[in-house]
Amino acid sequence: MERINVGLVGYGVVGNGVAQILEEKKDLLRKKSGVEINLKKVYTRNWNKNFQYPLSEDKKAYSLEEILNDEDISIVIELTGGIDFPYKLLSEAIKRKKHIVTANKALLAEKGKEIFLLAEKYGVRIGFEASVAGGIPIIRSLREGLVANEIQKIYGILNGTTNYILTNMYKYGKDFKTALKEAQELGYAEADPTLDINGTDAAHKIAILASLSYGGFLDFNQVYVEGIQNIDPLDIDLGKELGYILKLLAIAKGHNGEAEVRVHPTFIPEENPLSKVDGVFNAVMVEGDSVGETMFYGKGAGSLPTASAVVSDIVDISKSVIRGIGNEIELTSMNWEHKDLSLTRVSDFFTRYYIRFTVPDITGILAKVAEVFAKYSISIAAVIQKEKVLSYYKNSTSEKIVPLVILTHTASENNVQKAIEEIESKGITVGKSVIIRVEDEEK
Amino acid sequence: MERINVGLVGYGVVGNGVAQILEEKKDLLRKKSGVEINLKKVYTRNWNKNFQYPLSEDKKAYSLEEILNDEDISIVIELTGGIDFPYKLLSEAIKRKKHIVTANKALLAEKGKEIFLLAEKYGVRIGFEASVAGGIPIIRSLREGLVANEIQKIYGILNGTTNYILTNMYKYGKDFKTALKEAQELGYAEADPTLDINGTDAAHKIAILASLSYGGFLDFNQVYVEGIQNIDPLDIDLGKELGYILKLLAIAKGHNGEAEVRVHPTFIPEENPLSKVDGVFNAVMVEGDSVGETMFYGKGAGSLPTASAVVSDIVDISKSVIRGIGNEIELTSMNWEHKDLSLTRVSDFFTRYYIRFTVPDITGILAKVAEVFAKYSISIAAVIQKEKVLSYYKNSTSEKIVPLVILTHTASENNVQKAIEEIESKGITVGKSVIIRVEDEEK
Repeated sequence: MERINVGLVGYGVVGNGVAQILEEKKDLLRKKSGVEINLKKVYTRNWNKNFQYPLSEDKKAYSLEEILNDEDISIVIELTGGIDFPYKLLSEAIKRKKHIVTANKALLAEKGKEIFLLAEKYGVRIGFEASVAGGIPIIRSLREGLVANEIQKIYGILNGTTNYILTNMYKYGKDFKTALKEAQELGYAEADPTLDINGTDAAHKIAILASLSYGGFLDFNQVYVEGIQNIDPLDIDLGKELGYILKLLAIAKGHNGEAEVRVHPTFIPEENPLSKVDGVFNAVMVEGDSVGETMFYGKGAGSLPTASAVVSDIVDISKSVIRGIGNEIELTSMNWEHKDLSLTRVSDFFTRYYIRFTVPDITGILAKVAEVFAKYSISIAAVIQKEKVLSYYKNSTSEKIVPLVILTHTASENNVQKAIEEIESKGITVGKSVIIRVEDEEK
Repeated sequence: MERINVGLVGYGVVGNGVAQILEEKKDLLRKKSGVEINLKKVYTRNWNKNFQYPLSEDKKAYSLEEILNDEDISIVIELTGGIDFPYKLLSEAIKRKKHIVTANKALLAEKGKEIFLLAEKYGVRIGFEASVAGGIPIIRSLREGLVANEIQKIYGILNGTTNYILTNMYKYGKDFKTALKEAQELGYAEADPTLDINGTDAAHKIAILASLSYGGFLDFNQVYVEGIQNIDPLDIDLGKELGYILKLLAIAKGHNGEAEVRVHPTFIPEENPLSKVDGVFNAVMVEGDSVGETMFYGKGAGSLPTASAVVSDIVDISKSVIRGIGNEIELTSMNWEHKDLSLTRVSDFFTRYYIRFTVPDITGILAKVAEVFAKYSISIAAVIQKEKVLSYYKNSTSEKIVPLVILTHTASENNVQKAIEEIESKGITVGKSVIIRVEDEEK
């Protein structure tokens, strides 16, 4: 039985969970993996706090060097936050030939190329199962279980906070602000929820999944991201009439050597299993050319679920350490095409659209809108035109204002944007139009 | 780049899919795994047929020895059927130190102990991802992704044929015979569907998952199995009134060193994600003490989905072959507790029950039933007593006959069986009672 020593940097919620599992399940892990894993040292900036899983004094490190300079430690687990500090830390660790386990999606999405190429140079492995979808083993499934597939599309609900809010808006008709406030009160949204709400967190995760699926690094700044902060309950209701449920989807599709990577509020049909994923749960749908449609569902956050993924990486890398790294592929799982991914420009997106215009309730409006759509080759699949004025639209003028919803067949984003601009500039509508993309294959 | 030669025995639907993937995706597999996999020889009893993926003459073997005696072949893929022939074949291959990949769940469930211990003795690996739930990487996820978990419960829909039939009965009110006939016409049920319908196929699969989860071999003959052949649409309807959906569930639960392994028609609440798994799809729910609830969903059968899993094993074992087998754990993933699993006896099951009695519509019946339940410490959670005679119950006598449904809280199987026996023997009921177990945690 060989023993592997690990060092942990960052002792927050997930760090406590990892220490707990490594300590309390030493025996289970040994029986299941054949490796004895020893948590040798833990570093955090301030030990003068109460911890969920308190550590004995001999495990506490008071400087990073205690971990980095310890030649017995072969794996460094990084569970801090931000980008700059962990980037420096991991670079140092890699140069000392320590393998890495991290849950830091921001770091991997924005500095992945630098980190992975450095790791490749020094021959160390990086485990990052916990960076996407918490305890769900999606990284391992993509790399290994679905290795025989060209991934046509990978998409999912990758942020629990926004899914909790949208579920609450859908089920109880709440508006965004109320739903956010409730999520904060229940601990499902942070005090500063910006990166969740505006889609950045989901974008970090889909960027990682896109690299794994399509085998190249990408420029994170080019990923299209739209959050849920402007979602109007009216659109959730109108979508329902069309058989759709609104989710914040993170989507990656590969075609012709390019990847289309985007995060935005999205209507999906009720028949799609993702539409049933409620509350803080995460789920990822993978479409592979051999396997077809397959879905992975579970808790996307939390101390022990995320720690479960971190420990699975520690075990996996420990096995590698014992038998020696097999080949270079283990080091470059994000880069198997050995060229950077080029991302499809927003204007070249090709999907279906839900568009809500706000129009006066007079005859001839639909004809005018349809005419512009035809000019831009946008084919209309369904229309909802409300006869009655919704209370929402009541205003002080005597004119009746109603919503006009158009569901399109697959169309080019560029054409849709141009058509809407033309319709608005012609004064056919009053007020701003709402565009929500629809993920629903044409039958 | 190292090259691994594989031999394939059995060239049916899945075999054709495997050959197609290995031939057409050689390049993708090389880029993603760093290994070149060469399908060297394929054996089938009769080459004089039309194949979905025809092979060139140089790949055809006309005797098993061409594969077994070829020292260049390091992995043998077994995709035949039955138990006796593949058992002999695999034993021979293992003795020649060839690694094995198989999709044969019957073999592994009924002869797993012999096969795995032989493999351990000769130091070869057995890949069996394809034996459970087709393309869904559930084996790998249990072994690796969820390694940090004590599995509290693993359960799922593991047979597409029966799920297709039950979905059809639920959605369109069809009876079992009609639904089976339609499934056969559409190719979702075989001409002889016995092993699917009676639950044996699902039982084979849950036996494998139970061994992986609880780390020991089990006696397949002791697994409790009940099929869907006697399901009455009336119970599907009455269950619906209680918020339940009927599925053929395969269930394994571990407690106190024992495993409770059973397959039977089961009511699950509409909120359970498994209740939305329709048609031929499979899904497995895993409850781990760290990860919580996690679900894996996808196609459980078919040429390419199953081949996707077979190829993932070939890739995985190929990597092992190149870098050397790391430790004995890879060889004994079904046996990490190093002792056989003892199975809970049926009479010791402890779950919730739906019981439908058939009773005359006269006062006092419920009181009599409730009295017997109280005697056996069975607590009643809900009752449905129909005032009107259902058309189903109309008979030629003048007496009104109605269904009386009792939903219990968690109770012991032994007590439930005794209570029903007593109620029936006292003449309170007319006709046979129906018992359906309910998988619904008490709140």
